[in-house]
Amino acid sequence: MSEILVVGSLAYDTISSPEGKVARTLGGSANYFSLAAHHFAPVRVVGVVGSDYRDEDLQMLRSRKVDTEGLQIVEGKTFHWEGKYEGDMNDAITLNTELNVFEHFNPKLPEAYKSSSFAFLANIDPNLQLDVLKQIESPKIVASDTMNFWITSKKQDLLEVLKNVDLVVINEAESILLTEQANAVAAANDILKMGPKAVIIKRGEYGFILKMGENFFALPAFPVARVVDPTGAGDSFAGGLFGYLASQNKALDFDQLKQACVRGAVIASFTVQDFGVTPLKDLTQSMLHTRLDSYLKMTML
Amino acid sequence: MSEILVVGSLAYDTISSPEGKVARTLGGSANYFSLAAHHFAPVRVVGVVGSDYRDEDLQMLRSRKVDTEGLQIVEGKTFHWEGKYEGDMNDAITLNTELNVFEHFNPKLPEAYKSSSFAFLANIDPNLQLDVLKQIESPKIVASDTMNFWITSKKQDLLEVLKNVDLVVINEAESILLTEQANAVAAANDILKMGPKAVIIKRGEYGFILKMGENFFALPAFPVARVVDPTGAGDSFAGGLFGYLASQNKALDFDQLKQACVRGAVIASFTVQDFGVTPLKDLTQSMLHTRLDSYLKMTML
Repeated sequence: MSEILVVGSLAYDTISSPEGKVARTLGGSANYFSLAAHHFAPVRVVGVVGSDYRDEDLQMLRSRKVDTEGLQIVEGKTFHWEGKYEGDMNDAITLNTELNVFEHFNPKLPEAYKSSSFAFLANIDPNLQLDVLKQIESPKIVASDTMNFWITSKKQDLLEVLKNVDLVVINEAESILLTEQANAVAAANDILKMGPKAVIIKRGEYGFILKMGENFFALPAFPVARVVDPTGAGDSFAGGLFGYLASQNKALDFDQLKQACVRGAVIASFTVQDFGVTPLKDLTQSMLHTRLDSYLKMTML
Repeated sequence: MSEILVVGSLAYDTISSPEGKVARTLGGSANYFSLAAHHFAPVRVVGVVGSDYRDEDLQMLRSRKVDTEGLQIVEGKTFHWEGKYEGDMNDAITLNTELNVFEHFNPKLPEAYKSSSFAFLANIDPNLQLDVLKQIESPKIVASDTMNFWITSKKQDLLEVLKNVDLVVINEAESILLTEQANAVAAANDILKMGPKAVIIKRGEYGFILKMGENFFALPAFPVARVVDPTGAGDSFAGGLFGYLASQNKALDFDQLKQACVRGAVIASFTVQDFGVTPLKDLTQSMLHTRLDSYLKMTML
């Protein structure tokens, strides 16, 4: 087992969906990722929050083997995102984004973090992803995510990131935007040409596809009849999969990636069942094992 | 192995997609279904065509063990559908529908067809589906498909069909329209309450879900990077799956349905690779076996 470094956002989210509404609930890619990954391996968080960040939210991470030495607490307000879900629940409509202290975030790794073997660069400015990458000494596996905003506004920097990571984990719509292809299968082929050894495309309720060299693997999501809030499903998918990789502590390997994706899908299926990180806070190893068994039964002949 | 009776449309289609355009190419649910199912079991077709129906199109079916005694050839023009695909290729945009001889179609089963053990009621007026059902003596498995038009305009008749079939095979968007649920998982649960023992929801490039009682199974589609024309993918999926069931000649069983869906997915993946029925005409047993092997490798741990 090896430690995972994750850099990403810690946020408060205001979310409405056909199932209800919550205001200023804990969110952000680094929180979702950490709450998923800690089930498999210890996590170190690099990020920034404002002086309004609730102490209970910090303690919640710390009580789960998440090292927060790399978390900067600065004067000002925490990143706030407001969004809503309608109709098929696959796409969030952003109503408001207040970057706040995130606007001038300058990630600086504590000395102890620099030897991390597993690094996940969650969705932040590709230049910050590159900054973090430079500070890590000799990682075994580096993975990155991104979003439409960076694809549109900082494509060259993003392409530089892709050249320097082993694994890309990206949403289906964003894979299509990035490659200008007609579907995720074609997009996966193109992304591999951009540098990474493997790519995982997240398809929401439709699961994921994984491509590494000529090897391809895909599964649907675990079925959830009542989706309350899809926020963070992709980040917890990434946390589960990357946590599994770190727990195995090996170089990137296709069979390991398949197993890792299955863990990601299982964790993500919990995330969507209630607002914010609520389902992840209550998650136990036993719940994970039971759902993993069901998932395999539902997808294997 | 047992004979399959299929009732559905035989049509000429004019289709445009980002990959090109074809005019008056062979189409219709019964054609796609038969060209898929005949690989597994003999097929009997019930349908109607006009006097413009090309003899080569009739011979093409006959040369593939498809019995066309139940095919009515009447004065007038064959059903013609015109549609286009744009963007994500998952939904056809209908430009024009000319029912022609299909408008007064009155399905009448030849004597020999009445003892068919396997019957597939493809997407036609639910009243015609019921007419056909009444003429079959003691079927082992009856399955039906439908479309948005009947859900909206003849819901009561459609619900009567659903009470009288063992298996429903339906598109994802139509399952949601029929049940007014938010997603296919919830829709599957509701459809089972309408009468059938099992339901299969077709999700295009995202594969399928299968529900029978409390048993659930799902897989993504076989990956196709270049989709030329998705027309008939759902009907050939149904043909492959129902053909497999007839080849086993048993009552409805969950494990058989899983295997059947896999065959459906494999055949459908060929259908989308060129316009109309072209890929299905060229399909060999050996191509099916090779792709089945790849598909299982790509979806099984």
